Amino acid sequence: MLIVQKFGGSSVADAEKINRVAGIIADTYADGNDVVVVLSAQGDTTDDLIAKAAEINPKASKREMDVLLSTGEQISVALMSMALERMGLPVVSLTGWQVQMRTNFDYSNARILSCSTERIQQELDKRRIVIVTGFQGVNGMGDITTLGRGGSDTSAVAIAAVLHADKCQIFTDVEGVFTADPRKVPNARKLDEITYDEMMELASLGAQVLHNRSVEMAKRYGVDLEVLSSYVRKPGTKVKEVVKNVEQMKISGIAKDNNVSRIAVVGVPDEPGIAFKLFRVLANSKINVDIILQSIDRNGTNDISFTVSEADYEKTMQLVEERKDSLHYKELYGDKKVAKVSIVGAGMLTSSGVAALMFEALSDAKINIQVISTSEIKVSVLINEDDADKAVQVIHNKFFD
Amino acid sequence: MLIVQKFGGSSVADAEKINRVAGIIADTYADGNDVVVVLSAQGDTTDDLIAKAAEINPKASKREMDVLLSTGEQISVALMSMALERMGLPVVSLTGWQVQMRTNFDYSNARILSCSTERIQQELDKRRIVIVTGFQGVNGMGDITTLGRGGSDTSAVAIAAVLHADKCQIFTDVEGVFTADPRKVPNARKLDEITYDEMMELASLGAQVLHNRSVEMAKRYGVDLEVLSSYVRKPGTKVKEVVKNVEQMKISGIAKDNNVSRIAVVGVPDEPGIAFKLFRVLANSKINVDIILQSIDRNGTNDISFTVSEADYEKTMQLVEERKDSLHYKELYGDKKVAKVSIVGAGMLTSSGVAALMFEALSDAKINIQVISTSEIKVSVLINEDDADKAVQVIHNKFFD
Repeated sequence: MLIVQKFGGSSVADAEKINRVAGIIADTYADGNDVVVVLSAQGDTTDDLIAKAAEINPKASKREMDVLLSTGEQISVALMSMALERMGLPVVSLTGWQVQMRTNFDYSNARILSCSTERIQQELDKRRIVIVTGFQGVNGMGDITTLGRGGSDTSAVAIAAVLHADKCQIFTDVEGVFTADPRKVPNARKLDEITYDEMMELASLGAQVLHNRSVEMAKRYGVDLEVLSSYVRKPGTKVKEVVKNVEQMKISGIAKDNNVSRIAVVGVPDEPGIAFKLFRVLANSKINVDIILQSIDRNGTNDISFTVSEADYEKTMQLVEERKDSLHYKELYGDKKVAKVSIVGAGMLTSSGVAALMFEALSDAKINIQVISTSEIKVSVLINEDDADKAVQVIHNKFFD
Repeated sequence: MLIVQKFGGSSVADAEKINRVAGIIADTYADGNDVVVVLSAQGDTTDDLIAKAAEINPKASKREMDVLLSTGEQISVALMSMALERMGLPVVSLTGWQVQMRTNFDYSNARILSCSTERIQQELDKRRIVIVTGFQGVNGMGDITTLGRGGSDTSAVAIAAVLHADKCQIFTDVEGVFTADPRKVPNARKLDEITYDEMMELASLGAQVLHNRSVEMAKRYGVDLEVLSSYVRKPGTKVKEVVKNVEQMKISGIAKDNNVSRIAVVGVPDEPGIAFKLFRVLANSKINVDIILQSIDRNGTNDISFTVSEADYEKTMQLVEERKDSLHYKELYGDKKVAKVSIVGAGMLTSSGVAALMFEALSDAKINIQVISTSEIKVSVLINEDDADKAVQVIHNKFFD
């Protein structure tokens, strides 16, 4: 089998951790597999480099930040190769430009366009373990780029896709994807399998196991993903197109996001173009709006509610206030003390009453629902932030116990 | 003018030093010059990386060490670019592979084969300051290589050569090339000019201002070099093919090397092939032999004296002892407490009595000469290590006061 394994920055943070990971790689290789490994920068390396840059120029260009930060993964792959060399194994490290990981020109947040198999295949043909830098690429001008948040996951999936790897294993510090955050919900269970779509909903909802871009790419190219622990050697969660839902679970997981604030624009005239004007203003300032709800008032006016991240809250309030005259609204309310709790599951498509079960759990626990938003495989509610952990627990009990 | 400026690891060791160097670069650019800058790794970065590698694998392959260490210069060029960006200047950093600094396959000690002007020229045409990584290149397989000791000087000269730069300035922590080590000889003077050949003799004699490989390359391609201080803004020493020796100095400088040990193989039969056999053995063990002297003894036997570095002393003694039978010598002597003191000057070719003046100075000071070795532009003597500093001073007084 050809297996791509990706290890994040905390898995390679120091010599001891590098040696543990080298053990996992060596075992995979000893089992007769071809192994390509994708690594992130050591956590402290990135922090050190960012501190160095900030001291010299807090507003450094993204191009030069990419030149700087991309050294981090290069250090990781060299050190990992050295660890495997010490175990007597044939190994070679390769950088983003050496595997021709071509990206667009969007420095610090580049998208992968293509990746060459040539050099990697040459090395695999020599029965070498190939250690590739994650997170980085090279654009059409031959400049170094980095991929932004979750970039190494995406690198690993891209390499797995072009090599037609049999699987792509993403090693993290958790044992897989859980029905809820196991630190908060003691009886949360690990899922054996989950669909790409469910994984994407869970990822965007704050369950930070896999970055969405990597799951999207895995879905597009049909890469079999597995999320598993670099600390505990046991199977993790497989992410694939169709899963055998042996347990007939109605939902796959419950996610909570506290980084939400809710804004209500009350008494907007019921005229075409007002909502457009409002959201255009926010888009121009690169503010991402999540849940949007519009309700019709009795007096021919609308109330528009929407959510933004807490970091964008003050700016959003200011922008909307400044446009009171052109938006013709009556009142503006804002609330940072809200949380979004969501249930996700492909099973919702076929199973009725899933949302009702969630609302029942919250009602039993006397938790007030402020806003409800639904999609085909997801139901989200906005509630008071203080109730969020309890909400996740009671919903979990309702569905899984 | 097109000027290549090279700054070493100590000149870019921290943010303050990077900012000072950025000031030098900015002034050169403001004077209307095209500027290409070559940088070494920050001193502490290299040390940190070596320590990281040693912790994981003290016998790491040279290939992976090169992947690891080459990140050092990449960090330097990114940080320097950020410092210049902060000053509002147009700047771009480039790595060894981006400028196609092609080398042979000798990892950790690679030789430069060629360097492309394409990308650098493109950037200069945009009136950008170009900051290039020293010390590193890429071989025919697309692997990262490093150039070994003094490599960044050689990178700078190579870039100056292919770009036909008007000059190549090597910034160091000294103000130029001195007639003797100014820390030891208070009245040592800075030379305004020196020839390539003299510089090479001085470099190989322990005056560690410029690495020999860079001077060799500068001579071959006629690159006008200047050695100057990154701390004091005044002219340094120019290194060129022919110099105007305005002062009619008989010599250019005096160098001392304490890292010398002397070995005498006494009573070798006067037969063809014996000396060959001896030095073949040392060459096979990669031991560099410097001064060699052979004297004919009365009884049909020779004495062979030679010098090796102190690091190679024990091994050399052992190798020669093991071959007592095949070399047929009578006795073997070794002495680590010797120093080599040399005078260098193209003026020797035309001026007689230079060597005599040196010997007179030593004789007046009652310093015993053990071995004398001469070349066209150099006279070296081996003396007791304890006398070395005094010897340099008295010779300097004789020639320069």
